[in-house]
Amino acid sequence: MGRRVVQPFTAGQLAEALGCELHGDADVAITGVAPLESATTGDLSFLADPKHRRAALNTAASVLLVPRGDAEAFRAGGGALRATLLHQAPHVGFAEALERLFPQAPFAASVSPSSVVDPTATLSGARIDAFVQIGAQASIGAGSWIGSHCSVARGARIGVDCIIHPGVHIGPDVRLGDRCVVQSGAVIGGDGFGFQPTREGWRKVPQVGTVVIGDDVEIGANTTVDRGAIDDTVIGRGAKIDNLVQIAHNCRIGEDTAIAGCVGIAGSTVIGARCMLGGAAMVNGHLRICDDVIISGGTLVAASIDQPGRYTAVFPITEHRQWLKIAASLRRGSR
Amino acid sequence: MGRRVVQPFTAGQLAEALGCELHGDADVAITGVAPLESATTGDLSFLADPKHRRAALNTAASVLLVPRGDAEAFRAGGGALRATLLHQAPHVGFAEALERLFPQAPFAASVSPSSVVDPTATLSGARIDAFVQIGAQASIGAGSWIGSHCSVARGARIGVDCIIHPGVHIGPDVRLGDRCVVQSGAVIGGDGFGFQPTREGWRKVPQVGTVVIGDDVEIGANTTVDRGAIDDTVIGRGAKIDNLVQIAHNCRIGEDTAIAGCVGIAGSTVIGARCMLGGAAMVNGHLRICDDVIISGGTLVAASIDQPGRYTAVFPITEHRQWLKIAASLRRGSR
Amino acid sequence: MGRRVVQPFTAGQLAEALGCELHGDADVAITGVAPLESATTGDLSFLADPKHRRAALNTAASVLLVPRGDAEAFRAGGGALRATLLHQAPHVGFAEALERLFPQAPFAASVSPSSVVDPTATLSGARIDAFVQIGAQASIGAGSWIGSHCSVARGARIGVDCIIHPGVHIGPDVRLGDRCVVQSGAVIGGDGFGFQPTREGWRKVPQVGTVVIGDDVEIGANTTVDRGAIDDTVIGRGAKIDNLVQIAHNCRIGEDTAIAGCVGIAGSTVIGARCMLGGAAMVNGHLRICDDVIISGGTLVAASIDQPGRYTAVFPITEHRQWLKIAASLRRGSR
Repeated sequence: MGRRVVQPFTAGQLAEALGCELHGDADVAITGVAPLESATTGDLSFLADPKHRRAALNTAASVLLVPRGDAEAFRAGGGALRATLLHQAPHVGFAEALERLFPQAPFAASVSPSSVVDPTATLSGARIDAFVQIGAQASIGAGSWIGSHCSVARGARIGVDCIIHPGVHIGPDVRLGDRCVVQSGAVIGGDGFGFQPTREGWRKVPQVGTVVIGDDVEIGANTTVDRGAIDDTVIGRGAKIDNLVQIAHNCRIGEDTAIAGCVGIAGSTVIGARCMLGGAAMVNGHLRICDDVIISGGTLVAASIDQPGRYTAVFPITEHRQWLKIAASLRRGSR
Repeated sequence: MGRRVVQPFTAGQLAEALGCELHGDADVAITGVAPLESATTGDLSFLADPKHRRAALNTAASVLLVPRGDAEAFRAGGGALRATLLHQAPHVGFAEALERLFPQAPFAASVSPSSVVDPTATLSGARIDAFVQIGAQASIGAGSWIGSHCSVARGARIGVDCIIHPGVHIGPDVRLGDRCVVQSGAVIGGDGFGFQPTREGWRKVPQVGTVVIGDDVEIGANTTVDRGAIDDTVIGRGAKIDNLVQIAHNCRIGEDTAIAGCVGIAGSTVIGARCMLGGAAMVNGHLRICDDVIISGGTLVAASIDQPGRYTAVFPITEHRQWLKIAASLRRGSR
Repeated sequence: MGRRVVQPFTAGQLAEALGCELHGDADVAITGVAPLESATTGDLSFLADPKHRRAALNTAASVLLVPRGDAEAFRAGGGALRATLLHQAPHVGFAEALERLFPQAPFAASVSPSSVVDPTATLSGARIDAFVQIGAQASIGAGSWIGSHCSVARGARIGVDCIIHPGVHIGPDVRLGDRCVVQSGAVIGGDGFGFQPTREGWRKVPQVGTVVIGDDVEIGANTTVDRGAIDDTVIGRGAKIDNLVQIAHNCRIGEDTAIAGCVGIAGSTVIGARCMLGGAAMVNGHLRICDDVIISGGTLVAASIDQPGRYTAVFPITEHRQWLKIAASLRRGSR
């Protein structure tokens, strides 16, 4: 399910595809991509941040995407450089170039003979790889690709044009929208962590909700999204969730919110749209975070937030000896 | 392995099942469950916390579980409400109601023809789903259900009435008690992280212990429990462990201790009974935490704790600008 | 893929194998290993740290590895002890003894009939267990063992004598060196978390790099190592990575660096050789950590580090009430 260069573009063809101006040799072939420092003959590279300008002037790449204003500097560039593409936003242009140079390989609908598919499941137009189990009444949309070793439990519904990488487990009645991407090892729809204290110990509370995921959502490798206790756990359209993230039962994640790796969100917390949570942030349960909030990496959020902005809760890092003094003074100061 | 309403109860039947008093129409059918705010006709909902009283008075649920003392308020409730069940502890009653309304579907003992089971393994009375590998001398107790894509290595023993969700990997000689639940993607019995420094770099120390898990333990999705170095890693009866938790080699977790998501417990640490560890807490290695300790979410535990109580180590969250000032003053204060 | 005692050694045979002096009965049979406190007849145990000396004097082990200087104390030991082995570094000697007593079981090259192997893949001399999928042009080195339920995508190359535990997913073109060990559930080569903000929301940036892992690397259970965006993600020879660690795209981890459980390393960060990262540490993106740095557990690293040493950023733990006072004073102090 990976990508690779399928056909070499010339610099001219790429300029045309991106709709940008070209200086230099339109016929030079692009045979790979690389960062400025490690690029070599045949490579396309790009300059987006001015602080890398020196590296760009010294690159061994054959073709360079540069900001429009930099045309003159690189026209004279000489050296290895054979052609420059002038782009309003080179990092966007480079992403577009990657999509052209490394298109997702097309695939035909098919069902691996080594898969076990319930006869009541619907999967017209999907590709089902080896060792996939699909339960009763599940449905997979056309153009979706289910990688090897996935399980899709009874009643689960996956939209069209999704890519489910190998080893993903999708629980009963979970719903995924269209064009979702789920990386390997993710578990969507496991039981929420619901137990009641009794005299005989913890008693499991049946988790009878499910998970509902909107269109264009990406879920990272080994991330877990628990099914709701009564209600559903909901992830809004366009949300992007990195690896090893825990989304507990009944959480609601707003549209276009981005959650970095190792984040944990405890049960029933509602996070607004367009938020950004830094790596290893932890959000307590039953909170409400409004739209457009940025949480710094490593920050524990212990109370609701109703004003957009950036919030932080991180002990400043120092050498260990210095830290010992700070920690001691902190303790003293409180007496 | 999920649950769903198999037969509609009437309010009267449910009241009888729960042994609680009913006001209103005993014949109204319960066709679903929902929180107070999203409930609609046919739904059962409940009021446990007085702060949700207004929502309860306005709910569109047909049947409501309420505290005994609230009988009068809801008798007069009118509106959509057709019946109220009076219960001493409505949240407990609601959990019981869920167990009645969504019973675990019964399953017959069977072995999927797509599984690979060593002839010396014992699995009488168990259900083995597709693509399961079971090694030599392993045993699975009667009434246990092994989901698809699980591996149970040689010599591992799983008790009766366990539910092992799809994609769980259980290492050699691991022992699970009865009535355990393991969510998808959990890895029980991987090698502990044991290496010795040598002049040529780290040298792996064979990890020859295993993992011993008591009865009624739940292990969350993508959680990892490492096998012991020499001794075993032990998880006591009734412990509940959430998703993405790391339990390192030789840890001992006490009975009925609950561990929330994203927690890490380093090697050889012993945690007592009835402890509660909040999300993303981290416990250093070789520590002893006594019984009845509560660790707040996000707290790093760097020393042993011998007194019950709640312990916390979290930087207070503020707006980022405010945090910059606090962090600077903290550093100054230490000079 | 676990280990177990295959033949009992006598104390004399073990002393010879380890090249160390023996006092006592050379013929006593070693039938197991155990820590000092739980050892019993037939067990080998060891004393490395002087603080366990009393436990060693009282152990019920039959054979004991002790520091050379302690010969006299244990010669007189009497009781259950039948033989002592005198070793310059008993913890190293004990690790060697474990390797002798619990050798990795030898295995023959074989391919499970339940695996699905692309005809263009190369796997001469490897063992492929049940339900493994191996893609086009992938290669597995001689003496490597691929556990059940693994997927090895097209073009991936695994060196010789590797052990890949059950349920590991290895993405396209990923390269592993020789003698690597990968624990269950690890995902190597999932897409990096690369998205660009646009007016219509986040736009996925194709991740066209891969992952390159050196010789003698160990990767823990459910750990994730993302493929590079353009360049590769690189893990140097001899690095040891524990469970539930996230290594983001384009990171470079130096040789012999050890990373404990639950650590997260954000994108493009470069970590030097021989570093040690404590559990749940988090390193922000685009940083450089020089060689020989120790990061304490739970520490967030927000800036590059160019001096070897130990660094810490952890709020000191206290009882919760005390913490409330410290947190309040911290906030006041900043006004």
